[in-house]
Amino acid sequence: MLNSRWFLEITSDTEVNMHALEEVIYSSRTKYQKLEILRLGRFGKSLILDGKMQSAEADEFIYHECLVHPVLLAHGDPRNVLIAGGGEGATIREVLRWPTVEKVYMVDLDREVVEVCKQYMPEWHKGAFNDSRVKVFYEDARKFIAEASEKFDVIILDLPEPMEAGPAIMLYTEEFYKEVANHLTPGGVMVTQATTVSIINCDAFAIIYKTISEVFKVVRPYWTAVPSFYTPWGFVFASNGKDPKGLDVGEIKERLTKIDGALKFYNPEIHLALFAIPEYLKDILEKETRVNRDSSPISFY
Amino acid sequence: MLNSRWFLEITSDTEVNMHALEEVIYSSRTKYQKLEILRLGRFGKSLILDGKMQSAEADEFIYHECLVHPVLLAHGDPRNVLIAGGGEGATIREVLRWPTVEKVYMVDLDREVVEVCKQYMPEWHKGAFNDSRVKVFYEDARKFIAEASEKFDVIILDLPEPMEAGPAIMLYTEEFYKEVANHLTPGGVMVTQATTVSIINCDAFAIIYKTISEVFKVVRPYWTAVPSFYTPWGFVFASNGKDPKGLDVGEIKERLTKIDGALKFYNPEIHLALFAIPEYLKDILEKETRVNRDSSPISFY
Amino acid sequence: MLNSRWFLEITSDTEVNMHALEEVIYSSRTKYQKLEILRLGRFGKSLILDGKMQSAEADEFIYHECLVHPVLLAHGDPRNVLIAGGGEGATIREVLRWPTVEKVYMVDLDREVVEVCKQYMPEWHKGAFNDSRVKVFYEDARKFIAEASEKFDVIILDLPEPMEAGPAIMLYTEEFYKEVANHLTPGGVMVTQATTVSIINCDAFAIIYKTISEVFKVVRPYWTAVPSFYTPWGFVFASNGKDPKGLDVGEIKERLTKIDGALKFYNPEIHLALFAIPEYLKDILEKETRVNRDSSPISFY
Amino acid sequence: MLNSRWFLEITSDTEVNMHALEEVIYSSRTKYQKLEILRLGRFGKSLILDGKMQSAEADEFIYHECLVHPVLLAHGDPRNVLIAGGGEGATIREVLRWPTVEKVYMVDLDREVVEVCKQYMPEWHKGAFNDSRVKVFYEDARKFIAEASEKFDVIILDLPEPMEAGPAIMLYTEEFYKEVANHLTPGGVMVTQATTVSIINCDAFAIIYKTISEVFKVVRPYWTAVPSFYTPWGFVFASNGKDPKGLDVGEIKERLTKIDGALKFYNPEIHLALFAIPEYLKDILEKETRVNRDSSPISFY
Repeated sequence: MLNSRWFLEITSDTEVNMHALEEVIYSSRTKYQKLEILRLGRFGKSLILDGKMQSAEADEFIYHECLVHPVLLAHGDPRNVLIAGGGEGATIREVLRWPTVEKVYMVDLDREVVEVCKQYMPEWHKGAFNDSRVKVFYEDARKFIAEASEKFDVIILDLPEPMEAGPAIMLYTEEFYKEVANHLTPGGVMVTQATTVSIINCDAFAIIYKTISEVFKVVRPYWTAVPSFYTPWGFVFASNGKDPKGLDVGEIKERLTKIDGALKFYNPEIHLALFAIPEYLKDILEKETRVNRDSSPISFY
Repeated sequence: MLNSRWFLEITSDTEVNMHALEEVIYSSRTKYQKLEILRLGRFGKSLILDGKMQSAEADEFIYHECLVHPVLLAHGDPRNVLIAGGGEGATIREVLRWPTVEKVYMVDLDREVVEVCKQYMPEWHKGAFNDSRVKVFYEDARKFIAEASEKFDVIILDLPEPMEAGPAIMLYTEEFYKEVANHLTPGGVMVTQATTVSIINCDAFAIIYKTISEVFKVVRPYWTAVPSFYTPWGFVFASNGKDPKGLDVGEIKERLTKIDGALKFYNPEIHLALFAIPEYLKDILEKETRVNRDSSPISFY
Repeated sequence: MLNSRWFLEITSDTEVNMHALEEVIYSSRTKYQKLEILRLGRFGKSLILDGKMQSAEADEFIYHECLVHPVLLAHGDPRNVLIAGGGEGATIREVLRWPTVEKVYMVDLDREVVEVCKQYMPEWHKGAFNDSRVKVFYEDARKFIAEASEKFDVIILDLPEPMEAGPAIMLYTEEFYKEVANHLTPGGVMVTQATTVSIINCDAFAIIYKTISEVFKVVRPYWTAVPSFYTPWGFVFASNGKDPKGLDVGEIKERLTKIDGALKFYNPEIHLALFAIPEYLKDILEKETRVNRDSSPISFY
Repeated sequence: MLNSRWFLEITSDTEVNMHALEEVIYSSRTKYQKLEILRLGRFGKSLILDGKMQSAEADEFIYHECLVHPVLLAHGDPRNVLIAGGGEGATIREVLRWPTVEKVYMVDLDREVVEVCKQYMPEWHKGAFNDSRVKVFYEDARKFIAEASEKFDVIILDLPEPMEAGPAIMLYTEEFYKEVANHLTPGGVMVTQATTVSIINCDAFAIIYKTISEVFKVVRPYWTAVPSFYTPWGFVFASNGKDPKGLDVGEIKERLTKIDGALKFYNPEIHLALFAIPEYLKDILEKETRVNRDSSPISFY
């Protein structure tokens, strides 16, 4: 017998994903967005913002390992790391595995999301918020970066989708990426989550890629499958020098020996596999001409 | 406004995928299974058997290129190819790109499926059924292989899921894989589609891998994301010598220059990326002990 | 196993009805609205306009008998009948059962709907469009009535829901009902379908009732359950004299003996039952103060 | 924007009702059935057993008033009342409005359901469980009645649907109704809820009617629309003498003056309306020949 309770994630006007809904752990409308923590079928506890799956207990490690490790590994000696977004605390958790890291700033607009994640989602942060290297700011990430007097070795953009009326719409524009570039130390690197790369819906990915390419010299799109997202997921790495794709397996292996604890998804072969781009997607990325600008930021839904 | 008509693919008792249903192109109950050709949201024309998505116009090339090219490339000089299943004709289409191929047998139980695909899905077969190298048999693939007097350089198992009461349940057992092995020429290779590798549902993949490992010396699991399946998808390559993983990029490139027409997904980097197995999946595959046997074949749904 | 194809009727942001979708018989976007003829689960062939169920083969007789017979029976001697809307032809069919009827005008804005119903839904009209007493006009019903030089014994408003941007939004206002009143013969009567009376959603019904009460002296709300609507359904009868509620069973029986053919829902007991209003609905109707006017017509969804 | 969380009531393999799911108030698997208390869209707090809506805060009064008052009113002087099922306590609540009532026994198999309703659904019972006239037994109703040494003026069967493997399947058979008849005082009356009367699904109603007709002399089917059930709902009244249909409006009015508190649905006109049977349903009831017996009790889903 089918379950009686469901979570429906409406990913477009023609695609909907249904998950059996075991439990509503938390539900509210924060100052900025609709916040739900739900227990879903085989994916377990899950964070949902404005109806969109952010991460699920069963496979959040795939997203977070793929977001964090390529960029930190590419840097080689990350000390100061800035995370924009990342309310669950899992991005901090992965960053803290790198022993060179001395300082992690996390900037999230929505204090309620962070506090609710702290309380209800310890499987994600695993106490990372309490690490003495970590400092959390509840501010608009764009404003925080623009006004920051410090620079960072690594900036990680772990943001919700750029939806109209959503809190992250101004965090995918050329002007924002320039602020990011201005706040990287020499040799600094950045990464952003970059929405779905599904062939039926990869416009946003291509535009983000093109926009970042206007600002940085080395831009590496990459992707993997995150089952709870029901669609292959994209990321874009950028720097003005360092390149995660130029590394050989031996070098990757050596750098990975330094990190604390066992990884569940990422490994040297996966590192290289992430950057393999299918032919059709190469074409799409090459042909993309749209640059996302403040004057008319694109809403991808 | 959301669409009014939907196709629901029930992939487990806790997960359902909904696609906007533009058109019911064909619907019948064949002698063996429920057959539907539907036009779905952004995925376009799609073949559905017993309620399960088989392939969609928008991204069938991902599945079919990943099923066919690694195994033919690994063989190096494929002449005789046997396809079990593959009713859409797209597997034949990809096999025929290799100029060394002299003969392609396709064995599909369900004549109605093949004839309906021929008529309604020319975007898949692109006339491949008319190629003089191709011969189609409407028989049980297991019986056909067991009784075949010929041997094949490559055997491709392009089958529906092993569902209870479904037509393919006896085509994933150790006894069947032994028949396959017995009908390979020296240096012969095989591949099977191997169901989802999603972390929430990878039992079937692990059992297929383990079962094939009882029969063949070289067994290479691999996977990619096929968006219309909404879940990462697995394949298992097997042989008693040749190894698609042992090849270097130069060798792959050279072999790929021989094929006719442009590929849309597969390329040398993708070839290597396909075989990168995440840490959690390595663990699952290593620990799997179940072998699927005729005496109690596992139904994966 | 659940069906794979579904029609979803979104009746509010918190209620959706799903019907197994057997066949898409016709689907188009007319000049005025989205038009679908679908074959649905146990309800059979169904007409859907802008995603809303209009009538289903299995139970359209309930709606059409309850719309037509109380008002014609109350009139007693109907000769000239005007139907606004009613594209399926089933309202004409029921009207033509009364042998006194000499002339039936039907005015429907959407020629495509009527022509498609004629062709694909003969179970509804049963040839009624060919009756020599019938004349169909493809015009805006409001304009037609305002400009009509004739008057009618009975006016039947068989309209789609008053939805924003829908074709019927101006056909539920006080100004329109005044035009209706002006085009009734002495002793004339009218009826309108009046949306759901469900306790969770009966605002529209109450407003229609209140609006009509501004124009007519005798106003009788009534309702029944139409299973394919999944919600109890309302109607409002109005006149400046005749009253369907004042009749006794003997009188109803006698009048009903005159009609041609057997009824499937309506009978004298049902006639009386239709006008029984539950206590909570009496309260709601009594307290309603909103009158629907041209200046700001209410959209009920 | 559509809600993200939904309750799906699967009422047949071709019909499903979706309600926005605001809150999971309680969810468990009791010894006998799956129990959920959910807050649903506009229907509010709702009791769900084995995935089927039992009653909703917004309109439970319709079901409970229609179940209780016709039978108590028909009796005229009810003193001892037995309720089988009725875990929410709303049936007791309505029974206690009749001042002649001296004793109410409620027999419900599932102690957990009753205790959870007591705690979480005070809007239903309104303290009725604490009335000194009430006694609750946690037993199989069939066994309780068979072994009862007392007789009752009124027996009310407020049971879940007769589903295979459900707890109520043996409470709709001829043998059971004979036990009920044997435990009525002279002049005693009974009523049972009798599943949907929708034209697409009225087999169960017809069989229950036919089965009861084998046992009692006066059998009166009746029905109304309960919006949260999304389908018109049936009841069957039975006695060996008294007849709710034989009463005139004056008599009904007089009897109703006696009850405590204001009714929200039921009134004299509604009483008469409930018993009006549409033509198609008369035909179905007359033609039904199946009697539901212990030897092969029918499961209606």
